[in-house]
Amino acid sequence: MPRFRLTLAYDGTEFHGWQRQEPPGLPPLRTVQGVLEAAVRDVVRAPVLVVGASRTDAGVHALGQVAAFSAETSVPVERMPLAITSRLPEDVQVREAAIVADDFDPIGDCRSKGYRYRVLHTGPPAHWPDLFQRRTTYFSYHALDPDRMDEAARLLEGEHDFASFAQASHGRETTVRTIHSCRVRATGPYALELDVSGSGFLYNMVRIVAGTLVEVGRGRLVPEDMTRIIAAQDRRAAGPTLPPEGLCLMWVRYGEGPSACAPTSGAPPGTPAEE
Amino acid sequence: MPRFRLTLAYDGTEFHGWQRQEPPGLPPLRTVQGVLEAAVRDVVRAPVLVVGASRTDAGVHALGQVAAFSAETSVPVERMPLAITSRLPEDVQVREAAIVADDFDPIGDCRSKGYRYRVLHTGPPAHWPDLFQRRTTYFSYHALDPDRMDEAARLLEGEHDFASFAQASHGRETTVRTIHSCRVRATGPYALELDVSGSGFLYNMVRIVAGTLVEVGRGRLVPEDMTRIIAAQDRRAAGPTLPPEGLCLMWVRYGEGPSACAPTSGAPPGTPAEE
Repeated sequence: MPRFRLTLAYDGTEFHGWQRQEPPGLPPLRTVQGVLEAAVRDVVRAPVLVVGASRTDAGVHALGQVAAFSAETSVPVERMPLAITSRLPEDVQVREAAIVADDFDPIGDCRSKGYRYRVLHTGPPAHWPDLFQRRTTYFSYHALDPDRMDEAARLLEGEHDFASFAQASHGRETTVRTIHSCRVRATGPYALELDVSGSGFLYNMVRIVAGTLVEVGRGRLVPEDMTRIIAAQDRRAAGPTLPPEGLCLMWVRYGEGPSACAPTSGAPPGTPAEE
Repeated sequence: MPRFRLTLAYDGTEFHGWQRQEPPGLPPLRTVQGVLEAAVRDVVRAPVLVVGASRTDAGVHALGQVAAFSAETSVPVERMPLAITSRLPEDVQVREAAIVADDFDPIGDCRSKGYRYRVLHTGPPAHWPDLFQRRTTYFSYHALDPDRMDEAARLLEGEHDFASFAQASHGRETTVRTIHSCRVRATGPYALELDVSGSGFLYNMVRIVAGTLVEVGRGRLVPEDMTRIIAAQDRRAAGPTLPPEGLCLMWVRYGEGPSACAPTSGAPPGTPAEE
């Protein structure tokens, strides 16, 4: 049975996250996996399981989520994006489809992922959150210094124990992860973006990193504090978890053959609560 | 009793337009005027009538709507934007407040208004509406030529009978209006903006102008057709009414003393259905 890999984009605002949720005795919650499985079922005319690379939380967006399913179908792969997207609500789109190896595992084969966290902050013309970006940015009522934030961000690059940046209920055996790149850059006078990529992330890790960097940006921490915060291995040492709307999954990368998304010492693929 | 003029911005997506609507026996609809009057009442501690310059339709946005109310209050005018906005839902903001003459009439004293209509169109990277701009742009599945659209737009400038660009139920005695400026410019490879300003607009006029210019942009009309369409004085001669989400009220301008928003030959201020 052929296996298909999809690249997806979605506006997460009106979804209860990626993962299908069917509380007993209640109508199922609106999730990306839920609406996608319904659309794919309609295209291939059979029930399917669609597995996503990243279980994004409620309100988190994606421009490059990856998902896979197996199905017998007469629909050629090049028609798949249009066929599925035309059956999806307007806040999810299939951008690409490809045929992959029968055993392709979007979670287990993942080599790295990239996330972006977008922040607007205050200045003379912006005492209030931007009306038309409030669904896709976090707004800080404090002026932020992107250069200081970038200096701090770089100290997170490399292999570290990120226990300080994991929600207590992370459910992982190890909190060691490798961040390939962590950078902050100004994108306008009162706008900045955090771009972070790595082999795997703990639950809420990017949002806690963003919250800690905002503390640096407003001057409540200095960049050098990052080293101390990592060493503490204590969630209370880091800054707050920023809200989901600023976060977007930008891409998921795969190599040749299986390569674990979590570090080799980490939990097996499929362990919940990886964002 | 002092009179206050407010400059407002709102994301119109989740409003049933500007104008208060209280259908008998039903809960009131969510309107900008409705939420604003509730917030102002809470600030000045008395019932107030807030009059807006433009009765924007459901889904239409504003960056520079003007509204006015009269009230006795101890709140200084410079505190008014913060005081009101902090009591408003996150999709409406008071950007400025000023004390004006007791007889200031946001509709009757209006000298000109500016609207923007934003369009995204298709190209190799954009077979689908932009996920994060779908609430504030119209998406055309046809490639558009902004230069041809601009050429056509300029033919609308000046005083004309715009009967062809008015919804049949416009309810106005005259359909003669003056357009000060009507221009289209590309804002990106597959993005364009129509900016139109004038002394007054008929119901749905900007959306019909935009729909007619899109017909030019995709090659179904030539710019010179605009002259014929104006002369027809028939709604059927013009293009379709584009949806509200692309439209934004950018500014409302006032002169010294009262000056009619509609042309002197037009309907009296207060006639409904001016957009």
